[in-house]
Amino acid sequence: VTAGPLITLTTDFGEASPYVAAQKGVILSINPAARLVDLSHQIPPQDVRHAAFFLAAALPYFPPSALHVIVVDPGVGSERAILYVETAGQRLLVPDNGCWTFLKGETPPRVVRLAEPRFWRPQVSATFHGRDIFAPVAAHLSLGLNPSELGPPAAEWVRLTIPVPQAGMNSIRGEITFVDHFGNLITNIPAERLQPPDVLGVGRHTCRRRFRWVRTYADAPPGTLVALASSTGFLEVAVVQGNAARKLRATVGMPVVVGWAR
Amino acid sequence: VTAGPLITLTTDFGEASPYVAAQKGVILSINPAARLVDLSHQIPPQDVRHAAFFLAAALPYFPPSALHVIVVDPGVGSERAILYVETAGQRLLVPDNGCWTFLKGETPPRVVRLAEPRFWRPQVSATFHGRDIFAPVAAHLSLGLNPSELGPPAAEWVRLTIPVPQAGMNSIRGEITFVDHFGNLITNIPAERLQPPDVLGVGRHTCRRRFRWVRTYADAPPGTLVALASSTGFLEVAVVQGNAARKLRATVGMPVVVGWAR
Amino acid sequence: VTAGPLITLTTDFGEASPYVAAQKGVILSINPAARLVDLSHQIPPQDVRHAAFFLAAALPYFPPSALHVIVVDPGVGSERAILYVETAGQRLLVPDNGCWTFLKGETPPRVVRLAEPRFWRPQVSATFHGRDIFAPVAAHLSLGLNPSELGPPAAEWVRLTIPVPQAGMNSIRGEITFVDHFGNLITNIPAERLQPPDVLGVGRHTCRRRFRWVRTYADAPPGTLVALASSTGFLEVAVVQGNAARKLRATVGMPVVVGWAR
Repeated sequence: VTAGPLITLTTDFGEASPYVAAQKGVILSINPAARLVDLSHQIPPQDVRHAAFFLAAALPYFPPSALHVIVVDPGVGSERAILYVETAGQRLLVPDNGCWTFLKGETPPRVVRLAEPRFWRPQVSATFHGRDIFAPVAAHLSLGLNPSELGPPAAEWVRLTIPVPQAGMNSIRGEITFVDHFGNLITNIPAERLQPPDVLGVGRHTCRRRFRWVRTYADAPPGTLVALASSTGFLEVAVVQGNAARKLRATVGMPVVVGWAR
Repeated sequence: VTAGPLITLTTDFGEASPYVAAQKGVILSINPAARLVDLSHQIPPQDVRHAAFFLAAALPYFPPSALHVIVVDPGVGSERAILYVETAGQRLLVPDNGCWTFLKGETPPRVVRLAEPRFWRPQVSATFHGRDIFAPVAAHLSLGLNPSELGPPAAEWVRLTIPVPQAGMNSIRGEITFVDHFGNLITNIPAERLQPPDVLGVGRHTCRRRFRWVRTYADAPPGTLVALASSTGFLEVAVVQGNAARKLRATVGMPVVVGWAR
Repeated sequence: VTAGPLITLTTDFGEASPYVAAQKGVILSINPAARLVDLSHQIPPQDVRHAAFFLAAALPYFPPSALHVIVVDPGVGSERAILYVETAGQRLLVPDNGCWTFLKGETPPRVVRLAEPRFWRPQVSATFHGRDIFAPVAAHLSLGLNPSELGPPAAEWVRLTIPVPQAGMNSIRGEITFVDHFGNLITNIPAERLQPPDVLGVGRHTCRRRFRWVRTYADAPPGTLVALASSTGFLEVAVVQGNAARKLRATVGMPVVVGWAR
């Protein structure tokens, strides 16, 4: 079996709008053999941080042959650059808003700034670069175009940072970095080597919560508030077969504290 | 690389229901090499006009080799026909409800009325022609079936119309034709050659709104009400990094007026 | 055209979370030629019964060459088994929670219990077996791995049951088994050979409802409450171009009664 080149798509376009479809059409018009893989079109609108966590948790599992097209782009049409990036064994097309910078490679990334309109659609709108620039460039790359043809190397780019959790004497204070579809709260507190905490605080004034430390959800009865190691290696707060975000009215950025009795 | 034939899918089925999956299964059972491309399964239920705007904004970007299957079909099981259509360089299977008639080709469309049950599933339900007629016919077409085998040419079909905006002395009055996932309001007022207006009215009694005329969203601070040319070439009303539909309680069909001081 | 092997995906992961994407990446890293087909990622969280109805209504239409990966898995990380199943002409990877047991084959199913970690990811998390076990096993199967390599045959598994409707003198009492995206209510009352009923009761105390018996939705004006045969062969209650679940405040498990005047 010879299979067409893989192009993955991640956007905040939703699916009731025609934007995802238009992007797919442009790619397939230039390279009808491209294999499109939807990663998500439900990134919350303009939420670059959400996209950054999404990509860091998803892209490392892909083969290096895939090309990832990311269009979460509040700065569309402005002076913000569009970048071709090779990092952590992955190849991406991204707006220069930092959405890719949680991917950690062992070598410095290769970054090219898109500057050659001959690989774009002839007319580029001011509000839909996904269709007019990202899609045709992705299609040309999938046909074998050398990325150095796209524009000059870039040495500067926007970086996002993850706040570092603060370790106290008998506690660690971090924050919620991602709320998933189940309402599970993923934090920035590394779970590896974490001793089972005695105290858990979440949200305003980091209220103390009754909870159980578990290995997996099914270790406690439905409805139980639990803390555990997430599948991405961070402290996670969940409600078994429930929705912790709703139960605790928790949102991204809220503080989370774990503590130990001496 | 030899790639299987492209079949795109657009429905109002949602994804929690098994209808999209059943349709995919039927196609792949007849032509296992077909390449399925999801355009949307989130067309609002039975909203033929939404589908019509969606298709007009999405299909023109596809290569002529694609076959587009559209199942937004409030008349399923009734006397309404199912049509094979070639128009504007695209090939479609559609219920005869006008959903394809905003696609504008340079030549008259070729339209065939499906009438040959030998290309359908042996038992055709009264409520799910997507599975029982559209899917098997699409699969047979993707295997090379000549469309003239499907039934007789059709000379009549349902047409949708877009209301024409009304030009006054110093104003144009149009309406909202589409609200996208971001809450941006797309109107029927062509944006090409439009002078930046001084006055913008939206909704009931077309209230005057403070707004800025911009080239793209990022030209104004978050929260600003802006008017601009949409990526499809029409006047668009948006809130920068916000949701204009929610802010203005605006829905499809509401009047929009732009005016100029003398 | 030689096409890669088909792997379908059904989960309750939603699309704003990175879990679907991670699963796709793992499959494509092991078998880059696999063709991924999304069935649904909108199964309601942890709703195994919803998944079971979904699969029974969708999978029978697929060719036997497809492999179906189902991850609706409230028991993830616990002692629950993961199964490879051949039944009703389909091949599935499922958590042992009964989600596949509404598929009815003519011969007993072949069931294998996954027990060979060499086909899993080297590190298996306690909360994301979709990525760490289901995905790599699916990819290896798509490369031709003999299912008997995966583990020992299983003779026991969790079964779900559909309640049997109760027939009275002049009535049948059943219940709602599935509510679809349109708000249509699918029941467990077989529609084949059902005489058009004179009385319809739905919900609390099975209130009598004014309704019309129809062949398809378009047989009655918009807004009409109708009863009809569903596309899966059961009694269905719907509101024409409306939402019966919302109108009747109906949910899965509520009683439905149809009756006949003597």
